[in-house]
Amino acid sequence: MDKSFIIDEDRKRRLGFDEVIFGASKSVALLTEILNEYTEKKSNVLITKLQADKAEILLGIFTTAFYDKESEVFMLSRVKNSEDTSANIGIISAGSSDIGVANEAHYTLEYMGVKSHVIHDVGVAGLHRLLNQLEFIKTFNILIVVAGFEGALPTVIGGLLPQPIIAVPTSVGYGTAKDGVTALHAMLTSCANGITVVNIDNGYGAAMSAFRMLKLLEKK
Amino acid sequence: MDKSFIIDEDRKRRLGFDEVIFGASKSVALLTEILNEYTEKKSNVLITKLQADKAEILLGIFTTAFYDKESEVFMLSRVKNSEDTSANIGIISAGSSDIGVANEAHYTLEYMGVKSHVIHDVGVAGLHRLLNQLEFIKTFNILIVVAGFEGALPTVIGGLLPQPIIAVPTSVGYGTAKDGVTALHAMLTSCANGITVVNIDNGYGAAMSAFRMLKLLEKK
Amino acid sequence: MDKSFIIDEDRKRRLGFDEVIFGASKSVALLTEILNEYTEKKSNVLITKLQADKAEILLGIFTTAFYDKESEVFMLSRVKNSEDTSANIGIISAGSSDIGVANEAHYTLEYMGVKSHVIHDVGVAGLHRLLNQLEFIKTFNILIVVAGFEGALPTVIGGLLPQPIIAVPTSVGYGTAKDGVTALHAMLTSCANGITVVNIDNGYGAAMSAFRMLKLLEKK
Amino acid sequence: MDKSFIIDEDRKRRLGFDEVIFGASKSVALLTEILNEYTEKKSNVLITKLQADKAEILLGIFTTAFYDKESEVFMLSRVKNSEDTSANIGIISAGSSDIGVANEAHYTLEYMGVKSHVIHDVGVAGLHRLLNQLEFIKTFNILIVVAGFEGALPTVIGGLLPQPIIAVPTSVGYGTAKDGVTALHAMLTSCANGITVVNIDNGYGAAMSAFRMLKLLEKK
Amino acid sequence: MDKSFIIDEDRKRRLGFDEVIFGASKSVALLTEILNEYTEKKSNVLITKLQADKAEILLGIFTTAFYDKESEVFMLSRVKNSEDTSANIGIISAGSSDIGVANEAHYTLEYMGVKSHVIHDVGVAGLHRLLNQLEFIKTFNILIVVAGFEGALPTVIGGLLPQPIIAVPTSVGYGTAKDGVTALHAMLTSCANGITVVNIDNGYGAAMSAFRMLKLLEKK
Amino acid sequence: MDKSFIIDEDRKRRLGFDEVIFGASKSVALLTEILNEYTEKKSNVLITKLQADKAEILLGIFTTAFYDKESEVFMLSRVKNSEDTSANIGIISAGSSDIGVANEAHYTLEYMGVKSHVIHDVGVAGLHRLLNQLEFIKTFNILIVVAGFEGALPTVIGGLLPQPIIAVPTSVGYGTAKDGVTALHAMLTSCANGITVVNIDNGYGAAMSAFRMLKLLEKK
Amino acid sequence: MDKSFIIDEDRKRRLGFDEVIFGASKSVALLTEILNEYTEKKSNVLITKLQADKAEILLGIFTTAFYDKESEVFMLSRVKNSEDTSANIGIISAGSSDIGVANEAHYTLEYMGVKSHVIHDVGVAGLHRLLNQLEFIKTFNILIVVAGFEGALPTVIGGLLPQPIIAVPTSVGYGTAKDGVTALHAMLTSCANGITVVNIDNGYGAAMSAFRMLKLLEKK
Amino acid sequence: MDKSFIIDEDRKRRLGFDEVIFGASKSVALLTEILNEYTEKKSNVLITKLQADKAEILLGIFTTAFYDKESEVFMLSRVKNSEDTSANIGIISAGSSDIGVANEAHYTLEYMGVKSHVIHDVGVAGLHRLLNQLEFIKTFNILIVVAGFEGALPTVIGGLLPQPIIAVPTSVGYGTAKDGVTALHAMLTSCANGITVVNIDNGYGAAMSAFRMLKLLEKK
Repeated sequence: MDKSFIIDEDRKRRLGFDEVIFGASKSVALLTEILNEYTEKKSNVLITKLQADKAEILLGIFTTAFYDKESEVFMLSRVKNSEDTSANIGIISAGSSDIGVANEAHYTLEYMGVKSHVIHDVGVAGLHRLLNQLEFIKTFNILIVVAGFEGALPTVIGGLLPQPIIAVPTSVGYGTAKDGVTALHAMLTSCANGITVVNIDNGYGAAMSAFRMLKLLEKK
Repeated sequence: MDKSFIIDEDRKRRLGFDEVIFGASKSVALLTEILNEYTEKKSNVLITKLQADKAEILLGIFTTAFYDKESEVFMLSRVKNSEDTSANIGIISAGSSDIGVANEAHYTLEYMGVKSHVIHDVGVAGLHRLLNQLEFIKTFNILIVVAGFEGALPTVIGGLLPQPIIAVPTSVGYGTAKDGVTALHAMLTSCANGITVVNIDNGYGAAMSAFRMLKLLEKK
Repeated sequence: MDKSFIIDEDRKRRLGFDEVIFGASKSVALLTEILNEYTEKKSNVLITKLQADKAEILLGIFTTAFYDKESEVFMLSRVKNSEDTSANIGIISAGSSDIGVANEAHYTLEYMGVKSHVIHDVGVAGLHRLLNQLEFIKTFNILIVVAGFEGALPTVIGGLLPQPIIAVPTSVGYGTAKDGVTALHAMLTSCANGITVVNIDNGYGAAMSAFRMLKLLEKK
Repeated sequence: MDKSFIIDEDRKRRLGFDEVIFGASKSVALLTEILNEYTEKKSNVLITKLQADKAEILLGIFTTAFYDKESEVFMLSRVKNSEDTSANIGIISAGSSDIGVANEAHYTLEYMGVKSHVIHDVGVAGLHRLLNQLEFIKTFNILIVVAGFEGALPTVIGGLLPQPIIAVPTSVGYGTAKDGVTALHAMLTSCANGITVVNIDNGYGAAMSAFRMLKLLEKK
Repeated sequence: MDKSFIIDEDRKRRLGFDEVIFGASKSVALLTEILNEYTEKKSNVLITKLQADKAEILLGIFTTAFYDKESEVFMLSRVKNSEDTSANIGIISAGSSDIGVANEAHYTLEYMGVKSHVIHDVGVAGLHRLLNQLEFIKTFNILIVVAGFEGALPTVIGGLLPQPIIAVPTSVGYGTAKDGVTALHAMLTSCANGITVVNIDNGYGAAMSAFRMLKLLEKK
Repeated sequence: MDKSFIIDEDRKRRLGFDEVIFGASKSVALLTEILNEYTEKKSNVLITKLQADKAEILLGIFTTAFYDKESEVFMLSRVKNSEDTSANIGIISAGSSDIGVANEAHYTLEYMGVKSHVIHDVGVAGLHRLLNQLEFIKTFNILIVVAGFEGALPTVIGGLLPQPIIAVPTSVGYGTAKDGVTALHAMLTSCANGITVVNIDNGYGAAMSAFRMLKLLEKK
Repeated sequence: MDKSFIIDEDRKRRLGFDEVIFGASKSVALLTEILNEYTEKKSNVLITKLQADKAEILLGIFTTAFYDKESEVFMLSRVKNSEDTSANIGIISAGSSDIGVANEAHYTLEYMGVKSHVIHDVGVAGLHRLLNQLEFIKTFNILIVVAGFEGALPTVIGGLLPQPIIAVPTSVGYGTAKDGVTALHAMLTSCANGITVVNIDNGYGAAMSAFRMLKLLEKK
Repeated sequence: MDKSFIIDEDRKRRLGFDEVIFGASKSVALLTEILNEYTEKKSNVLITKLQADKAEILLGIFTTAFYDKESEVFMLSRVKNSEDTSANIGIISAGSSDIGVANEAHYTLEYMGVKSHVIHDVGVAGLHRLLNQLEFIKTFNILIVVAGFEGALPTVIGGLLPQPIIAVPTSVGYGTAKDGVTALHAMLTSCANGITVVNIDNGYGAAMSAFRMLKLLEKK
């Protein structure tokens, strides 16, 4: 059966986005084929949700590639470390368990050529940790807010600050946390106005949404 | 078929509780029979979750009874208005839509002979409303915290204050609020330590839990 | 029990938003009290999800108020009809059953002083209807995309256009549509990049999210 | 305990179908027993959803058997590679992650003696990829359409083409994709007319449904 | 707000289908507007899932229209009573409670100009009722099988007969029947081969699927 | 469309059961037709889950029929009041809200010609009420145990008594009681050995299960 | 922490049952301690749902013990092979994948000193296989019917035979089979009268329920 | 990316609680970093839900640390074995499978400097085991009641004793036990008055709730 796939070359022109590959349900064989094609085209590519065991094999083949275990992000070549406190986009996480998802957003933005800054461990159960950093958080144009368990952080921030807020529920938690469904639903039913939400653990999607907003700003 | 029911007369001795009737799934005929029995015994009784149309009929029969439409609480005789800012128990609600459930807790405590004070509309989407009242809230021994939608209020209070906190999710909301399930799950997965939870809209249960704690305090 | 509520007067300064009231779970008595307070302050106010039977009573009391039955939107005074094809914000709905939610977004923006334009009945089952209007849709800065049933419209638009897209699932449908849950989940798992989502039937939330983006644009 | 099983020999006469074995919940011991019985009868047999570790052991015993790891299909003897662009049945998949399920349909049809052709990676997020192949897709009598995530592909095709469409949701995705439930529900609530659906990941069932239609055509 | 809607006039050419309107979530005002447009075009139209109270009003306006209360089907003009035992399509229902859904399929086919025959009350709990009619059922080219509760009828028929089978779960039942979800899931996980399924109560969709197959047969 | 239905006359011979009609989803017209047929045959019939408004109309037509509002049971003719403390079957309910379901079991047995005795309001929250009656409960051959809310009564009885126990969950409760699902699941996961369960609110099914056991006893 | 456990020695007298241990969530250490205690008392014991890896270790310690891998049943000493076609209890399974659960019932009865006979692979998709054995199945006093996927077998048997039927749903299947929930719900909503149900995969519970009935028969 | 985390040093002053770390979703690298920081501060710390494989590595690094495999509790230094029958807090578990969760509560209290006593294996299926210990259980001020499966134990105890009761559902069970959801819902819908509930398997949360009550008692 012929498995050659079609790189969506027109996407760049249409949307201004490079292609991104969802790694979790693809075999190493298929991913190798895809990566070879990008290597030939001398093009970088981002793979998300790539399991560590598969990444290890691919790193053995594509020796200059980059992989971050906690965020499961793989890139043919790392762009640069773009962590920058003067960035337009602030990524805020509730707990240190949410780092993986926050970093998926961070690396995706890096891949799109955009700087961002990650602030973590400011969950609402210790409110002063958030309030202490509020003035700094206020300086970003767009906020990506990442939280698991009861997912209350975007609501509290949304009640305090006027920026666009992209909420990312994470699958951190147990019991009624239900793999992130509680955080997702809490964010969708937030009493704070105008918060939007992406899929559970979808740091990548949050980054792309922020990217769409940035392009709008640039257009102006 | 013989429908006579057994009043649990021993309960008072055993638990120190008077009996309370769940009204929602009982017919007017059955409730009338029950109320007649209590009237004969010259005993007060509390009915919870009594629908307005059934209450109206019962108020026509038991003309000195009390009914509050928003909390669906019915009592053969109102004890007294025990709203009291010096009470041991503070009942805090996130939004004005949560008043019914907050009042169910309040009237239940009144029925048990306990004073409480209701503070409402201090939801986390307007954090300053909560922070402004924090010193006052701190003065209560036990806190009953009522919230619908994303149910974040008990988490924020639980991170700020050391008292026992009984969280009550309400069915206020729509879509993914799912009749209170999201608030329930958010409270159960709260990052704040040691919050306990009762059933959705169960202001009565929260009051009884507070009552168990008060009896413990009295014993000391 | 004292039911006076606290108007969040600081919100305007903090977020630039006027207050909005969730009508579905509030009694007519409570809503009347709230509306009187706003009337006294000579301030407009928006109530969302207000059931028709309650609206009818309120319109009898507040005779200059405005109510739209399909979107269940109530305002003390209508700002003006801001439907405008040159607006910044395009609201696109998949089917004529989605009009109510699309209009909730439209009226909310009107209340915030923002013009928008509604394009409806361009669902993906008749793709040419969408493709015929694509060039026009491309002219808006921000897109609010409303769909029930399988909720595929935001995915298709998201694959064709680069703007920020706020997807609104509606409860239109039956059986496995499950009160909008399928549309919600389809939007959250969209293969198109960077789509964000709000609660089921939450046209109001989508409008507020668009408003946050507009403020960002103005700041520039 | 006697574990001999009954081969449904009458099925062929009754339905025109050979028997197919569901492999996932059977032990290697039981499968070996079954395969020996078919080998003795000099009959081919198809096993679906056979895990790789069990297949490996069986391939050691039945050395001329065929196994495809991605589709988890096992046959005592491969019929022939029937991929054929002039076939009656087109199998269309949305993403390269859906290949396994598409191939389960393909191999099942091959086992039934029917040719089919697989077209993949034409998901709706890159609509032009689908539109480019539409004329070719139009040439097939019956379409099996395979998609995970939001499962929108059958809806879009169903709005463009008049053939019978059998939609197969796949468990590809994460978070609210919920092991294929979102794709399933999206396909069942499709706005496009007359799409029918099979179980999640059930490429086999889709093939058998197509086979029932083909027999109807032959009868004519 | 301009509510004019776009009749998908191209659909007929593209798919060979006339348009059908989903009535449940549309207001009487909107439906009247739509029906006027069809009346002007001197075209018939089918509305499905139209609630009785709304139908009554529309029948007052469109006095020659047809409405069937149990199936909630509305047509501007009834084509003819096409119940015909020599038809190509057999519609088989498990219980007399399933009549509404079976008839929705029947009337939809009638609207498409196709004859069908309804056989009802042959549920598997009284197997002989089914077996008695099996020879007759065998004579149809395509079978639509409608069942609520445990939804076992399509499985039993699918094990006995080789035709294409379109299974329609109904919301008949209570408790764990869960508004038809159990019947739906039972049909999707059927041990019988090659059964396809449509949404709960979707007699209309089953009819359209049968129509797609018929067009295929005609093409031959 | 011909709606004549087939009375399963063979059932009596096959199973020893008379037919029973599920009333909830049948129209008054259809039920009238069915009842006329039974009246003509001079046969009694039992209808379960018949809503009060439909019953009222039928009682107007079939003036000697019997209807019990709480259990929603309708019979063409009442057999006799068979409540009998010396019966073989004990029906035990946890709360007075469960009376309707307990009586559905009771009337069904009466219709089958079997005496039973109902003991109610012995829920586990007041354990002494149960323990006081334990010796009496022990005298029945078969126990039908009816409970809503957390559904713990069958577990406690199952740990104390050796008889066959048929547990019936009821939809009594609110919030996480979820229309009886919690009671159902609690009964299915009971730590007590050998408890079997029927559908939520299915007093009828429990009676029929007991009837199957009684026939077995008679056979001996 | 003291972990000594209490063997429920009174149970035998009270219920006539020996104790049975749930193995799945107990550690090897705890199980060893329990088994030692039974060994000392020279008493047999049955452990259910014991994972193979834990069983292997225990078989190394208790060398005369018996373990069956497919049913996950462990006994300190095997009573005897009681498979017997003249037994009172027939255990009928739908597919060969259901053998494990059928055997759990079989071994449990053996442990209780009761003979049973297992008939397997008579699922409803090949109805003649069931009908061929119907006369034989009729000879048993009590039927335990085991099925996964759509779980239709108990319904079909229940419509044909008058014995007590204990239905056991199994977790065999995939997709919407949902770990046995579909089979469970199908059995609970069965159109056949008087079927009772136990938990998913609970062959043990079905056996204990049959045992309760047998004791009743013996009493007679 | 900088991963330094903020120890919430103010918590002690604010709430009287030391910090506790949720271990399940943190990497060994991150936990090592956290433990080093606590070691430097010469402070103890409690990690909950720490998987055995990660604990083993950490025990290799922090050689004086304590880890209990069944409760998955890790402490830098064990305080002391505080099991004490004269303690204020009784922890009661239904089955020996619930020991892990009961001990999580026990060790958490130990870490907070509070003595407790664990009574296990007193589930309601063998009621006399509970009744035998009732006088002893009565002596504790606060009861933590742990149960899996149908979770009935808190209800029975709540009907017998007047103390505050914190119910902890466990994930022990299978099938409809659904990872503890049934026990959770049973506890939330308990007919006994004033029981409060924490998340599934959350022995830690129950301990913290008891700690909040103890602080209240001390204040008196």
